[in-house]
Amino acid sequence: MLKAAVLGATGMVGQIFIQLLNRHPWFEVSAVAASERSTGLKYSEVAKWKLPTPIPEDVADLEVLEINPKEVKDVDLVFSALPADVAEKAEEDFAKAGCVVVSNASSHRMDPDVPLLNPEANYDHISLIEQQRKKRKWSGAIVTNANCSTAVLSLPLKPIDTEFGIKRVIVSTMQALSGAGYPGVASLDIVDNVIPFIQNEEEKMQRETQKILGAPSKPASFEVSASCHRVAALDGHLEAVFVELKHEAEPESVVDAFERFVGEPQKLELPTAPPKPIVVRREEDRPQTRLDRMEGRGMSVVVGRVRNDPVMKGVKFIALGHNTIRGAAGCGILNAECLKAKKYI
Amino acid sequence: MLKAAVLGATGMVGQIFIQLLNRHPWFEVSAVAASERSTGLKYSEVAKWKLPTPIPEDVADLEVLEINPKEVKDVDLVFSALPADVAEKAEEDFAKAGCVVVSNASSHRMDPDVPLLNPEANYDHISLIEQQRKKRKWSGAIVTNANCSTAVLSLPLKPIDTEFGIKRVIVSTMQALSGAGYPGVASLDIVDNVIPFIQNEEEKMQRETQKILGAPSKPASFEVSASCHRVAALDGHLEAVFVELKHEAEPESVVDAFERFVGEPQKLELPTAPPKPIVVRREEDRPQTRLDRMEGRGMSVVVGRVRNDPVMKGVKFIALGHNTIRGAAGCGILNAECLKAKKYI
Amino acid sequence: MLKAAVLGATGMVGQIFIQLLNRHPWFEVSAVAASERSTGLKYSEVAKWKLPTPIPEDVADLEVLEINPKEVKDVDLVFSALPADVAEKAEEDFAKAGCVVVSNASSHRMDPDVPLLNPEANYDHISLIEQQRKKRKWSGAIVTNANCSTAVLSLPLKPIDTEFGIKRVIVSTMQALSGAGYPGVASLDIVDNVIPFIQNEEEKMQRETQKILGAPSKPASFEVSASCHRVAALDGHLEAVFVELKHEAEPESVVDAFERFVGEPQKLELPTAPPKPIVVRREEDRPQTRLDRMEGRGMSVVVGRVRNDPVMKGVKFIALGHNTIRGAAGCGILNAECLKAKKYI
Amino acid sequence: MLKAAVLGATGMVGQIFIQLLNRHPWFEVSAVAASERSTGLKYSEVAKWKLPTPIPEDVADLEVLEINPKEVKDVDLVFSALPADVAEKAEEDFAKAGCVVVSNASSHRMDPDVPLLNPEANYDHISLIEQQRKKRKWSGAIVTNANCSTAVLSLPLKPIDTEFGIKRVIVSTMQALSGAGYPGVASLDIVDNVIPFIQNEEEKMQRETQKILGAPSKPASFEVSASCHRVAALDGHLEAVFVELKHEAEPESVVDAFERFVGEPQKLELPTAPPKPIVVRREEDRPQTRLDRMEGRGMSVVVGRVRNDPVMKGVKFIALGHNTIRGAAGCGILNAECLKAKKYI
Repeated sequence: MLKAAVLGATGMVGQIFIQLLNRHPWFEVSAVAASERSTGLKYSEVAKWKLPTPIPEDVADLEVLEINPKEVKDVDLVFSALPADVAEKAEEDFAKAGCVVVSNASSHRMDPDVPLLNPEANYDHISLIEQQRKKRKWSGAIVTNANCSTAVLSLPLKPIDTEFGIKRVIVSTMQALSGAGYPGVASLDIVDNVIPFIQNEEEKMQRETQKILGAPSKPASFEVSASCHRVAALDGHLEAVFVELKHEAEPESVVDAFERFVGEPQKLELPTAPPKPIVVRREEDRPQTRLDRMEGRGMSVVVGRVRNDPVMKGVKFIALGHNTIRGAAGCGILNAECLKAKKYI
Repeated sequence: MLKAAVLGATGMVGQIFIQLLNRHPWFEVSAVAASERSTGLKYSEVAKWKLPTPIPEDVADLEVLEINPKEVKDVDLVFSALPADVAEKAEEDFAKAGCVVVSNASSHRMDPDVPLLNPEANYDHISLIEQQRKKRKWSGAIVTNANCSTAVLSLPLKPIDTEFGIKRVIVSTMQALSGAGYPGVASLDIVDNVIPFIQNEEEKMQRETQKILGAPSKPASFEVSASCHRVAALDGHLEAVFVELKHEAEPESVVDAFERFVGEPQKLELPTAPPKPIVVRREEDRPQTRLDRMEGRGMSVVVGRVRNDPVMKGVKFIALGHNTIRGAAGCGILNAECLKAKKYI
Repeated sequence: MLKAAVLGATGMVGQIFIQLLNRHPWFEVSAVAASERSTGLKYSEVAKWKLPTPIPEDVADLEVLEINPKEVKDVDLVFSALPADVAEKAEEDFAKAGCVVVSNASSHRMDPDVPLLNPEANYDHISLIEQQRKKRKWSGAIVTNANCSTAVLSLPLKPIDTEFGIKRVIVSTMQALSGAGYPGVASLDIVDNVIPFIQNEEEKMQRETQKILGAPSKPASFEVSASCHRVAALDGHLEAVFVELKHEAEPESVVDAFERFVGEPQKLELPTAPPKPIVVRREEDRPQTRLDRMEGRGMSVVVGRVRNDPVMKGVKFIALGHNTIRGAAGCGILNAECLKAKKYI
Repeated sequence: MLKAAVLGATGMVGQIFIQLLNRHPWFEVSAVAASERSTGLKYSEVAKWKLPTPIPEDVADLEVLEINPKEVKDVDLVFSALPADVAEKAEEDFAKAGCVVVSNASSHRMDPDVPLLNPEANYDHISLIEQQRKKRKWSGAIVTNANCSTAVLSLPLKPIDTEFGIKRVIVSTMQALSGAGYPGVASLDIVDNVIPFIQNEEEKMQRETQKILGAPSKPASFEVSASCHRVAALDGHLEAVFVELKHEAEPESVVDAFERFVGEPQKLELPTAPPKPIVVRREEDRPQTRLDRMEGRGMSVVVGRVRNDPVMKGVKFIALGHNTIRGAAGCGILNAECLKAKKYI
């Protein structure tokens, strides 16, 4: 078993990392770190645990450490669920100290030499680590996963781009509350309401999608325009996607491309890889947030309502994914599994 | 005072008609009609009244009549909140019998000789009545208002089209529960969920917007692609709109066009016309469904987040309107006021 | 494997029966029956399946049969999720035909010779079957589970009554939407709302609790007064319980009684019996509906906030249970397991 | 017009005070005070305004003052929406400085010489001011309104106690989100959930009800046991009330007592007094939170489902009131009107 630390372990994404790593066949959580407020105390005393399953017993008793590679020692890899402002420097410190950092933070996602991995879509970007190590003179490394709504969008765009060529993408999201962390969105702001704004989210979707779907060192040539909205669902981001295509395609061909699609994680049979990265629902009213978000244990993106769009000169469809699993901790763990497969861990 | 009948008076839109007509300066509800199940009984006995304000007293005691011009007599105009299947023939019967029918039903909206009015946007379409009467040999007439989500969309598109020219429109909606009537959406289907499907809604938005924003006898040349979704809000449809423009425009110019926009109803100072058909909010997180839906007593469309969209080669923004007021009964009443101003009633 | 039929298989409780029986170690669903509308068709074609897990494959293809012992043959037992009006006669027909009917319907619950089982509380009531068979001359039998809110209430009352004696009970419920079936509660009736009324529910809680906690042939001597309310939660009934005691008891003693409590199903290690029928949470703000409803795979009742109540001269506490599992299909299956243990199946 | 200051003006209750005082016939807001963070800035810049109606124009431009009688000068009365910890000393300072403080804070509610007013129930408690001034040597005074859930409970208990005598009361609440202020309850804690705990709320209901329904200097002889729960409604506290009576009463007599009930505010025709302090709904499923909370412009308590309770030896019923109006700012303003009627202002 490889020993893993979770940085930012008390927050919502930190909790999901710990929950998903419980009984993981390769990794075990051997250290947790969080902000000063919590250090020195037992994890179970400081984590305001918000998940229906209990805190895994061996983690509950861990002492919370300082976010510092001198304190967090003897680990084989580090999962970072740190807030962006803290992550920037802390992750570099860990990488410099020789750790492989698998991060959910946005700080380094757009660094040209840092892989931004949604591994079924761009497994080959792992190779950026070589460049990163050379340039930064690190023995460790930083690998990031995408922003939650980008993770959901980029998976179904991948086979479309491969098979039909994408010219541009318009996307409108209906995002879940857990995406804002805890306490996050106030209940008075969301009961009987929609909030048509999520700080920085549109910019992230636009640039991260391009990076993921491009070559390792060159963003995709097509552009994305996003409009992001918060709705009263607990988990699961649902997205209305309009795609202009280079080559005409019937909806049935696009569905077929979705269904045939597998990535390297499926071929390698990685433990967290869902059997199908993209699951197609054919009912006229699916995917639905609550009914479909746990597909592939939260790691599949579920698509539906694939239809012709003559206005967009392409297709439109609905995509849904679990924002804290495929869109955060689950993708991070899958990234770590890829790194192990590639012998970086 | 002019005497008005409400057809389909017991349903949700019928109830809103009755509520909004209470203390109307020009119209009073003197007759109510509904399906056979209710006829012969007092309105207050059969209407499962769902509004927080009580049933207006003079309507509560009305006997519910059959939906038939022979039964519904001595009225100056007829508001129709009938379901589409019943409306088709019934409205024709009333028009044939000499009544002016102001309808919220979809049955006749796309008839080339029937005005589909969102009056700030296309007041001049009233003139289609002449053609209608001539062709159908009616002394009465049918005038319709748009589908709820179309009513919200078409208002802000009007000044954009006038000032900058629209090439195409992509729209993604987040629609309220009251749009489905009562009982409508089951609670088990919407708590912690989004439903990405509303029967026929996308088709309606696409064709009705073109009709409204075209010349009386010719649809607009630009096309609309819609994706429609139901969310857990009670009232108010929020829409993410992406517009490709003929002529470049800075967001500030578009905001300016919104703010300068008034229609004939404002010039005529019609009782139900809001002071401003389009209200601009400048906060980064507005309009919000619950906070803004009652703007202009539910008759204004509130827009916000107007921003450049280089991908779409135009602008994107958020629009919000009250679906049962601007999107149904309120617009119907405003249409009737227009007809009176034009001496059709 | 014993072959089981599910009557009323297409409704919400029918679906839960089928879901919970999937991979059951003793029972397998070999027949499904429903109202005429569905007969002759495949189950997957007619069930509007509302659960996040898919329809078990072997059930999906079953032909839906008529609710009639002549059609539903070759089964070892019958689970009934029929509506009360249909259940009354249909269940008798099956029992007459020799079937053991394990019913969730209310029709026969209060029949003096029909066991109303919440088996950790009143396992000994099974013996009523003898009386029932004798009196009715049936080779089969009818055994019922309690109304959902009663199932949740009666479990924690059992050890309190045994150890301290109950004089009276006041209970106020906050019940989930799934308790009303599908489509059930309209979304417009529950978003931003509470409905303080559930048809017949208070009467059921009052009389069924007395029957369960009494001797097989004599209701308990204490009485229950209930006030029942519907809130915007999907699953899980939460109840505020005030108990007047015969013998004084400190909250800690009551907690202790809860924790020590096990019933016959635990002793027999029945497959559906939860490890602990009553789980105590000691946090000041638990149990909570969403966080705790799946405790014991939905079969445990979770209690908390046990506190002195000098006004009531006893204790007050919060109880929570899963209404479609412990309160319906799960309890039915546990009842069937008891019947098998007792050799009635 | 009398000049009023609002202390704690930026919080939720402060906002409601400002909204309700807009166009008040007797009082106008001439000063606003809040914590240091806001002082020196314009009210509209610092208040995160959460109400659908806009900030009243004359208040929007007020400079936010320090919470200090030396800063908040030239006012005829002071409304306090301060948090309890700040209120304790600050309100005393204002009273000492000669101001009449009408407070929503809990700090002084239980002081024996401070009136805790729900004025239809205990108008005569105003006389405690004499005692207060004498004892504390103040030229000003402090008058408080009850905790929100107590305000709703104590109104209907008043006529019951007067006419039939109360022996004890059991109450279980379903309380709205706005009761926790803003941001208050996290959305992740309440969607698809009930929280059976509100800090200090049960104690407040128990002791404040006794004080209100007692003589000015002596609490009522009956006791109250409360269980308090938070549900996903925006405004409006719904309460299930069980009352043991001294004298037997049929539900119809209790309804009759409710309907005949008026208090001094109604007799004096005070501007904020609702026509009926208690409104009875006779439908089996009313009052409902969203439909009934605005009755009497939020100042009436709506009751329903009055039924015999043989277990409790009395009656049980449902009560509903608007927590930020009758339960906070509205009651405070009504209290101020009473003080003016009594010439204390």
